Parts: sequence; C-alpha cells; structure tokens
Amino acid sequence: MDCVSEVKEKGLRAKQAARKLATASAQVKNQALLHMADALEQERATILDGNRQDMENGKANGLSKALLDRLLLDETRIHNMAEGLRQIVSLADPIGEGLEIIRRPNGLEISKVRVPLGVIGMIYEARPNVTVDAAGLCLKSGNAVVLRGGSEAIHSNRAIAKIIAEAAVAAGIPQGSIQLIETTDRQAVNAMLSLNEFFDVIIPRGGAGLIKTVVANSSVPVIETGTGVCHIFVDETADLVMAENIAFNAKVSRPGVCNAMETLLVHRAIAGRFLPAMLEKYHHAGVELRGCPETRSFHPAVKMAAEEDWSCEYLDLILAVKVVDSLDEALEHIDCYGTKHSEAIVTNDYHNARRFQQEVDAAAVYVNASTRFTDGYEFGFGAEIGISTQKLHARGPMGLRELTSIKYMVAGNGQIR
Amino acid sequence: MDCVSEVKEKGLRAKQAARKLATASAQVKNQALLHMADALEQERATILDGNRQDMENGKANGLSKALLDRLLLDETRIHNMAEGLRQIVSLADPIGEGLEIIRRPNGLEISKVRVPLGVIGMIYEARPNVTVDAAGLCLKSGNAVVLRGGSEAIHSNRAIAKIIAEAAVAAGIPQGSIQLIETTDRQAVNAMLSLNEFFDVIIPRGGAGLIKTVVANSSVPVIETGTGVCHIFVDETADLVMAENIAFNAKVSRPGVCNAMETLLVHRAIAGRFLPAMLEKYHHAGVELRGCPETRSFHPAVKMAAEEDWSCEYLDLILAVKVVDSLDEALEHIDCYGTKHSEAIVTNDYHNARRFQQEVDAAAVYVNASTRFTDGYEFGFGAEIGISTQKLHARGPMGLRELTSIKYMVAGNGQIR
Repeated sequence: MDCVSEVKEKGLRAKQAARKLATASAQVKNQALLHMADALEQERATILDGNRQDMENGKANGLSKALLDRLLLDETRIHNMAEGLRQIVSLADPIGEGLEIIRRPNGLEISKVRVPLGVIGMIYEARPNVTVDAAGLCLKSGNAVVLRGGSEAIHSNRAIAKIIAEAAVAAGIPQGSIQLIETTDRQAVNAMLSLNEFFDVIIPRGGAGLIKTVVANSSVPVIETGTGVCHIFVDETADLVMAENIAFNAKVSRPGVCNAMETLLVHRAIAGRFLPAMLEKYHHAGVELRGCPETRSFHPAVKMAAEEDWSCEYLDLILAVKVVDSLDEALEHIDCYGTKHSEAIVTNDYHNARRFQQEVDAAAVYVNASTRFTDGYEFGFGAEIGISTQKLHARGPMGLRELTSIKYMVAGNGQIR
Repeated sequence: MDCVSEVKEKGLRAKQAARKLATASAQVKNQALLHMADALEQERATILDGNRQDMENGKANGLSKALLDRLLLDETRIHNMAEGLRQIVSLADPIGEGLEIIRRPNGLEISKVRVPLGVIGMIYEARPNVTVDAAGLCLKSGNAVVLRGGSEAIHSNRAIAKIIAEAAVAAGIPQGSIQLIETTDRQAVNAMLSLNEFFDVIIPRGGAGLIKTVVANSSVPVIETGTGVCHIFVDETADLVMAENIAFNAKVSRPGVCNAMETLLVHRAIAGRFLPAMLEKYHHAGVELRGCPETRSFHPAVKMAAEEDWSCEYLDLILAVKVVDSLDEALEHIDCYGTKHSEAIVTNDYHNARRFQQEVDAAAVYVNASTRFTDGYEFGFGAEIGISTQKLHARGPMGLRELTSIKYMVAGNGQIR
C-alpha cells in the first residue's frame, strides 16, 4: 500500500471512529486509559525491543547525543508514560460540558455544549512519549487521533501504538480511534495536510522547520505550537534580587524548552547596578552571552550580538542581552522580535506592570515571575498537548478543553422564521 | 504600486494599527462607530455615484438580476448600513472580559482575558454592505481589518471604505485600522493568504468556490464560513402540522441563504400521510422537487433525484426529498452529505430527539424548529460576521466574541520554577 492510500484509509477509519467516540462516556474512556497504562507496562519488553532498534539506527545515522537521549526508553520512562495516562483519568471529561444556555424571546432554547473536534492529526518528532500523551489526551477529549511520529522513533512508536490501540479497543473504544501512520515516507505528511474531508485539525509538535512546513502547506486547520523567543525586561524599579533569580531561572533551569528566555532586556537606569553580577552569574553557569555594546561594557565574556541574535530561539545555554532606554523601547523590541509566546517584566512600578501586560501581544504575559511557567501543568490544566502560539482557537498551554469544539443544540416546539 | 506591494503595505499598517487599537476603550470605539454611521449618511451622494458605476459595469458585463440586486445601493440601504453600525454601539465590548482567574499553589495568579485577534483579512463578494458590517464588527472587537471585496463592487467599496475609515480616524481610531485593497487584481487575494507576518486570520465570505480557494491556499489561519447543505428529518412520530410548517419555512422563506434546507428526509412510516400534501404545497409555491423513487410515487411533479442532488447546495427554490427507513438511515445520510451547518429533526419521541442532537455533527442541531434560525441575530448575539462551518475557533454564527482571542496575564511576586 502506498503512503497516500495508508493515510486516506486511516483518515477514513478515524472519521468513522470519531463519530462513535464523540458520545462515549467518561467511564468508558477512563477504563480504556487505565487499560492502556497497564498494557504499556505489561508489554514493555516489546517496546524496549523496538526502541533498541531505533537507538541502533540512530547511532548508525549519527544522531546527536541530545536526540538520542530524547529517543531512549527504559523501564522508568515507560512507567512514566503509563502514569501519564493514569493522571488523565483524574481530569474532568470536557465533553458535554454546558457553556451557556440562551433562551430566546420566541421560546427557542439554545444550549452551547462542548463536543470533540473530531479527528486530530498529530505530527511530531523524535520523542516516543508524545505517542502516548497525544493518544491519551485525544481519547479523553473524545477525539480520534492519527499519529505521525518521527522516522527515528518508528519502531518504538509502532510498538507503543499497537499496544495502546489494542488495549483501548479491548476496553470498548471504537476501532480506529488511535492509529499510527506506519510508513516513514515524507509524502504521508503532505497527504495528512490536504485531507480536509477526514481531518478536523492538524497539530504539529517539534522544531521550527516542521511547524513552518505544516503551516505553509496545510489546507486542514492547524494549531501552531511552540516557537518561543521569550524576553524578560528588567525595569528601572525592579527588585534586583528578584530580577536576578527570575532571569537566571528563565534561562538556565531548562534552556531547551520553548518557555525559556532567549533575550534579556535591561533598563539603562539600572544596568550598571544589575548587569555586572548578573552577567557573571550566567558566565559562571556556562551561558554564552551575546550583547549590545553597552552590555559588553559590563563583562568581558559578552560577545557582540548580531542582528540575527535578537530573533533566534537558541534552545541552548546562549543568551542575548540588550540595554534599553525605556519601557517603550522594551515594548518595541518585543513587538519586533518576539514570537507571542511568553514575555515577562520585573518591576515595582504599578503603571509599567499594567502597560506591559496590556500592550504586549503574547499568549502569557508575566509580571514578576519566570516565563518558565507557561505550561499546562503549571497552569493547573493537569495535562498539555502543546503550547499554541497562534491566536485562533487556542492560545498558550493546551489541555483537554483546547481539544474541543462546540455545538449549539436548539430545542423548539415548532418555531419558524 | 503592484498589487502585492499594496497588500504588504496595508498589512503592515494594519499590524501597527492593531497594536494600538487593542487597548482602545469602548467609549472611543463607540464614538467612532457613530461617526462612521453619520458620515455614511452625510456622504451618501459619493457612495451612490460609485455604486452607479458598478451597476453600469455590472449590466454591461451581463451580471445576473440577483447579483445586480445584491450590488445595488439606494438611500434606504445606505441608511440601513448606518443603522447597522449604530446597533453595534449597543453591544457589549468583548475586549478585556475576564474569563477565568486561576490561583496556583505557588501564589501565581493567572487571569485569562479576552483580547482582539489582531489583523483580520476579510475576503468577500458582491454585496457592498459587507464592507460596512465587517469594518464595524472588527472595530468594536479591537481588530484592524483589511477588506477585499468583489471587483463588481469596487467603486461602491472604495467610496464606502474611504468614508468610514476617515470618520474612524477623525474619532480617534488609529490610522490603518480600516483599509480596503483598492486593486481588483486577483493576485491580491493570494498575497493576503500568504502574509502570516501581518494577518492573524482570514475570513472568506461568499460562494463555495471562493471559500474553497481560500481554504486550499491560505497559510494564514482561516475561519471557513457558510456552505449549508441542511436537512430536516421528519420522524415517524412528528406532529405533521408542525413538520409541514417547519419544512415549508426552512425551504421557502429565503432559499438563497446558507441556513435554508436543501434536503428533506421523511420516515417511511409517515411518508404516505405527510408527503402528498407537503409536496403539493411546495409545488404550489414554485419549488422544483427532486426525489427518490418512493417520493416520486406521492406527487407527479417530483423529478428523479441524481446522486449529486444529495450534496448540492441549491440556494434556490429546489428541494431534494428522500424517504428513509429509520432514524439511523437519516443519521447516516446527514453524516454522508451534510456540511455540518444546521440540521433538524421534527419528532415527538424523546429518545430520537436526544440521539439526533447528540449524534449529528453540525454547528446547530435543532429539535422541532426551522434551520433558518442559525444566524447571529436570531441567536441573540446582536451581530454576525458569518457562520463558521469548521470546528476550530468558532462554530456556527460568529458575533463579536468570535472575533477575539485570549491572553493569560500572570501576576507573581518573584516565582521561579
């Protein structure tokens, strides 16, 4: 079977499954999640076998150490994947939630209720745990999912998908609710992006290249995730100890994630008091520093920043630093180079805090806290399928509710217009 | 200036305007709407001049009578456009509305608030009143709008857009908040669809061809509007008088709109009692009937329906009619041929009503009422920019709230992760 036929066949089956899955009770869905978790642990040998193949291929193909680490599965990681599914059980089922009831003068009663999106196409890269996470979240939100993972993880993903899909079916979930695209042919992605008759939404998760390709080529609606060129602006009136803690945490605690800070902006009036120690602390932690000329005057390790640095998502222990004249200049800089992900100000000034929160256009805008909190778990959603950086449908961390649509149910007794 | 440059320049200006417009108060926006309404009426001679040119060109180009009627403006229609703007004043400003406040264990306070989408690209066809409606709704919801109307209406649209844009600026709205693409070159549409850096969303409004082109070619997120192959299913237990009223209303009251019924499904058990009089009533009202063999046995005027009839949006006094064996067959038919717009059942059976509402996947699902109510005004939204038939972001009638996104404002006192 060629890859386009595979995608079409799975798309159609997903569409059929989605119709039934939409009305599945929370009880059935939770039972399935528990089955899936148990099956993952019981059949871990099969998963580890698949993973071993992927690791060998990865080494042979010269994958980086970081990528190999993302790819690697062991007993603990499989246990964690299973635990992730069990946690989804404890989350409220979003489906059927009544959002509003409108009673019209003519007696019509219009109920706005949450329904699943339908069929979700997940396109992602190396980490095989996404296969489990995405399947679990889509299932709980009543959506059928067609998974397309990275070719590096194909053997792990095949093993995982087979185990959880069979466990779900055994627990009463319609066949076709969880499917993996088995081919690693890149044409399969293009096929998914054009099958509007089967897919209701495509969610890409991965590097900037993947996301750009999906956005540029999909006629199916897309929820764009992830690129984060996040800033922290240390204002004139900032508590300097707080600023140092936040700025250090936002860069160093986990530099490889999208909510990490990439550019530090510092008000000129406190640059002399703040930057020397701050830069030394970064330098000491192994952070490569690239700054404007004024920043460079405060520490010898700071290299000259190029124009590209201001728009670069390093995802690494590299930081761009710029001294600005005012809140306005900080706002201009963020407007010009930010990716509308997460932005923070450290300030003691009420008016500046308020202006920053109102004027910065981003999913999450912080006052006196680290950008690292932009995360479904940290926001209390109990789960996360990604972080949307677009404004349509979902913005910021996406949990179960963000995987739903709505339907108007209208009850009448003969009304005509 | 070539057309791509025009779109880019206007897109950039819209983006700059949107940043300021996002924080404009309801007071300023309402004042502008009133100014715009007054200006439309005061400068009606200019609009009528432009419209005269469009009408002359339209006649010379052999536009249909229906299209010429949509294009035509007169004093009453200009007054109605102005009144439309005045009505928007009375609607609540959606921007800044607090949707949720989440207080986290670590003390972070996360406020989810409504913000504008940013820059909206409206692509539409002949009716020049859309220029005013869209500008008014986008303005009230804090969005900059770039309007691209049909070439048939270009002189009317130029006159209207100039008048309302100037009136808005005079009332304190940032320049660039309302702009019209002046060229009629079709390349301008393609340019809009690819300028993700300037446009946050594209809303196409018009025929199926326009919408299909936009969906297929846009890398900017799209809200798909409008195609409605709507069904009414007359169940075995239906009150036949009610069924007749609803089925007649849904087809005949305004056949050219997307919420009109295109296919009538009738349960076999009551077909013999219901269809003869119903078909005669349609026939008498000039409705062309196309039916399945059994339907044809009830009235001589019914022509044989072809397979294409079941998926055709006639937008005309034509109706497809099918006798079905059961609710299940009706559900299957709707699932196969419907466009997820509006679907109705007429029934006295509790279980069938419930199943129909739960199992039909459409924006609006009716029990015992006409599909014609799927409309922003009829739903009580006070306005409508279109009816979404996709599941992402907005579904069904779109009012002011559907033109917004959200932002998380996070207040801390030094939290790090």
